[in-house]
Amino acid sequence: MLGARAQGGWRALRRCSSLPRAVRLRVREALGTREAVDAVRVQGWVRSVRSQKEVLFLHINDGSSLEHLQVVANPNLENRDLTFGSAVEVQGKLVKSPHRKQNMELQAETIRVVGPCDIWSFPLKMKERHPLEYVRQFPHLRCRNNTLGSLLRIRSEATAAIHSFFQDNGYVHIHTPIITSNDCEGAGELFQIEASSEVRESAEKTHFFNVPAFLTVSGQLHLEVMAGAFTHVFTFGPTFRAENSQSRRHLAEFYMVEAELSFTESLQDIMQVMEDLFKTVTSTVLSKCPHDVELFHKYVAPAQKTKDRLEQILKNKFVTISYSEAVEILKQASQTFTFKPEWGRDLQTEHEKYLVKHCGEVPVFVINYPYDLKPFYMRDNEDGPQHTVAAVDLLVPGIGELCGGSLREERLPFLESRLQRLGLTDTYQWYLDLRKFGSVPHGGFGMGFERYLQYILGVDNIKDVIPFPRFSHSCLL
Amino acid sequence: MLGARAQGGWRALRRCSSLPRAVRLRVREALGTREAVDAVRVQGWVRSVRSQKEVLFLHINDGSSLEHLQVVANPNLENRDLTFGSAVEVQGKLVKSPHRKQNMELQAETIRVVGPCDIWSFPLKMKERHPLEYVRQFPHLRCRNNTLGSLLRIRSEATAAIHSFFQDNGYVHIHTPIITSNDCEGAGELFQIEASSEVRESAEKTHFFNVPAFLTVSGQLHLEVMAGAFTHVFTFGPTFRAENSQSRRHLAEFYMVEAELSFTESLQDIMQVMEDLFKTVTSTVLSKCPHDVELFHKYVAPAQKTKDRLEQILKNKFVTISYSEAVEILKQASQTFTFKPEWGRDLQTEHEKYLVKHCGEVPVFVINYPYDLKPFYMRDNEDGPQHTVAAVDLLVPGIGELCGGSLREERLPFLESRLQRLGLTDTYQWYLDLRKFGSVPHGGFGMGFERYLQYILGVDNIKDVIPFPRFSHSCLL
Repeated sequence: MLGARAQGGWRALRRCSSLPRAVRLRVREALGTREAVDAVRVQGWVRSVRSQKEVLFLHINDGSSLEHLQVVANPNLENRDLTFGSAVEVQGKLVKSPHRKQNMELQAETIRVVGPCDIWSFPLKMKERHPLEYVRQFPHLRCRNNTLGSLLRIRSEATAAIHSFFQDNGYVHIHTPIITSNDCEGAGELFQIEASSEVRESAEKTHFFNVPAFLTVSGQLHLEVMAGAFTHVFTFGPTFRAENSQSRRHLAEFYMVEAELSFTESLQDIMQVMEDLFKTVTSTVLSKCPHDVELFHKYVAPAQKTKDRLEQILKNKFVTISYSEAVEILKQASQTFTFKPEWGRDLQTEHEKYLVKHCGEVPVFVINYPYDLKPFYMRDNEDGPQHTVAAVDLLVPGIGELCGGSLREERLPFLESRLQRLGLTDTYQWYLDLRKFGSVPHGGFGMGFERYLQYILGVDNIKDVIPFPRFSHSCLL
Repeated sequence: MLGARAQGGWRALRRCSSLPRAVRLRVREALGTREAVDAVRVQGWVRSVRSQKEVLFLHINDGSSLEHLQVVANPNLENRDLTFGSAVEVQGKLVKSPHRKQNMELQAETIRVVGPCDIWSFPLKMKERHPLEYVRQFPHLRCRNNTLGSLLRIRSEATAAIHSFFQDNGYVHIHTPIITSNDCEGAGELFQIEASSEVRESAEKTHFFNVPAFLTVSGQLHLEVMAGAFTHVFTFGPTFRAENSQSRRHLAEFYMVEAELSFTESLQDIMQVMEDLFKTVTSTVLSKCPHDVELFHKYVAPAQKTKDRLEQILKNKFVTISYSEAVEILKQASQTFTFKPEWGRDLQTEHEKYLVKHCGEVPVFVINYPYDLKPFYMRDNEDGPQHTVAAVDLLVPGIGELCGGSLREERLPFLESRLQRLGLTDTYQWYLDLRKFGSVPHGGFGMGFERYLQYILGVDNIKDVIPFPRFSHSCLL
């Protein structure tokens, strides 16, 4: 009776308890049904009401899809509370729709307003395409907006796809600690935590954990511990930076996917996983939420042709250049940069943008960065005179750095002398220790989840890809 | 050539680049192979070395399973670095094993020690079953211990099973904020956060976000926001309590699964999801990690008969009693309690234990708690003279409360008068606001992930079910 898509994944249809024969369907299930169903019950929120002399049209949405279910009713079922934004339960007959744009529609027998909506004070209006800046003012209501609804479904699917990618490839998922004393060597400014009562009461404070404790900036070092017993591990959780920035690229709280692999043969092993992860997750999102993604590509970032570009990118292998090649390309550029490109200096955003453009507006791996620019744990390439480490950044158009990774220095003597020079031997004694007990070549990478979403959807402000942006930046919304 | 289990889920076999014909297999893949394979390569850590006159036996583990792969070699392949704890790459022929206990074994042609192990300073010893308290002293090495290895695989599978459960049932996954100003009304003592530089420098401090900010104690209220647009939402992330406790039950940082459902008809809707979640995830873990779970049931908690009990529990419907019935049962108990059971008072751990025992050492739902004991957001049952709210706790043997949930008060007048009496109207204006715009009956629950693991595995100390216990308690390990 019901099509495969309607049943797909979701459990057995729930029978309505009050009216025993009515099958309860979500909007997405109803839209995916292939044949007429006599008695169904659909619940959701009214997205439009159109009352004509002979017929009353409603659009119902319950968050299961961007598309609404059209309800066709006798005008005598209308009532004062049946407005935009109200919550309703509609019972009736699910039939093939005569309209080309939709598969099924619901011929209502009863319409019950479960929760009315005070439309005068409701900040969202019927049929209005509110700008993202406008809806951002109403954090508790913005999920009722089409764009945010689509974003949240995409975010959910992308999250699931990331978990599946790693599980399908035999990775063990590790919950790396959020509270830590580890600062991952200058990954960024830290948030410190204390019990709130102590913060309030004592000037001369003793720390809750006896030692200062911070919010994690990266799970990498913890994952490396695990990579000494599991050849493939990953984590996907919140990370934090207390940077006083209000840019469109940085967040105080954001999600990061991190993976670590043992028994690597070269940096290429890490880059392959980065590329596979990107392509698999993106393909899954494109195929599972086509309408939601289309909304972004059509209305939020129409000028960017994100869709065509993504399709091209999924077909081709990512470009790889070395840092040294990158510097040469920049030196030969006709463009003048604010920061003069020079070997041994960090690549600036303007440089990254140029490189990506130079390579055809596609993702670009830049590998083998100067030894002196990178943290102690990156593996020495033992080259010269331009001394480099086996590090990689994945740059993407419009965003800059999407992923960063490296081989880790697994050789005890190299690590020892480097930590000694930096005066960090005591802090990282445990890290040195790992190199004494069956240490193997390994490496890993991290990918910022919000930047990923920004990139595939063409979203300008990173605030618009997170569910609750209140504490995302140093200043409140 | 390879059995279904060996290929199951994992990607195409990786060809060895240095020796083109050797297929790289993980231990789990090798053990699951059904027929002999001529040239394979396995990498991992040595778990035992047994040298006989005619033959050298190794056990190799790479974290993909609890079981080791047996390697059989000519004694002339032995070398000084080939010790317990060393990392090796073995190449040879995968053949049917003559031993009953294992399916396949690897006849080595070459053995390369990739990373030697300083066995004199390595705190783990060959063939020793170290107590959990002992390995807890070495947070960076304890994942090399069998028990912790099994725990981490189980934790990973349970995590995946939780995500799948909700995805299969059409829930949208929401990353609720970690940094928040919301204290979820007395769920526990809070951690406050500040940028670490400010904490250090200023006595008269201005907050990083202008207002005080805390670590989340629950994502419930944020999920409720989402339940106004999506009928089914869930979150699964870290939550925090700054409780100065060193019990075996409480953690400073722990994971919580939370779900929220709209258009509920009764508390039963919430309880059904709690029960389904528990049973589905547990069945998945039991079937995906049988050996890992067996290790806990056989060696960590052998006295508890956890396995038999779990199997019984999965077959039967959970028991439900009301709070009022619970109080009557406690009053009639022959046992004397430290806290006298009385209607209107909180159930103590001793009471919960008795109730669970009384019901036959199975999970027990206790529903409809006194109105005055519960937070403002729980739905008024409008009963009397014993006034209750539609709340539910799921109690399990050995643990106490595993899940807690309720219907939420969706009716504006009820909520308004209650918040007014509590003097919280201003703080929760946004929450009241939600009730003005298409508010529907809804409810949800939370389940502590670590308590869940403790329960199904029979682990006494909650520290032993987390990957890195350093900042799990107010005192350091």
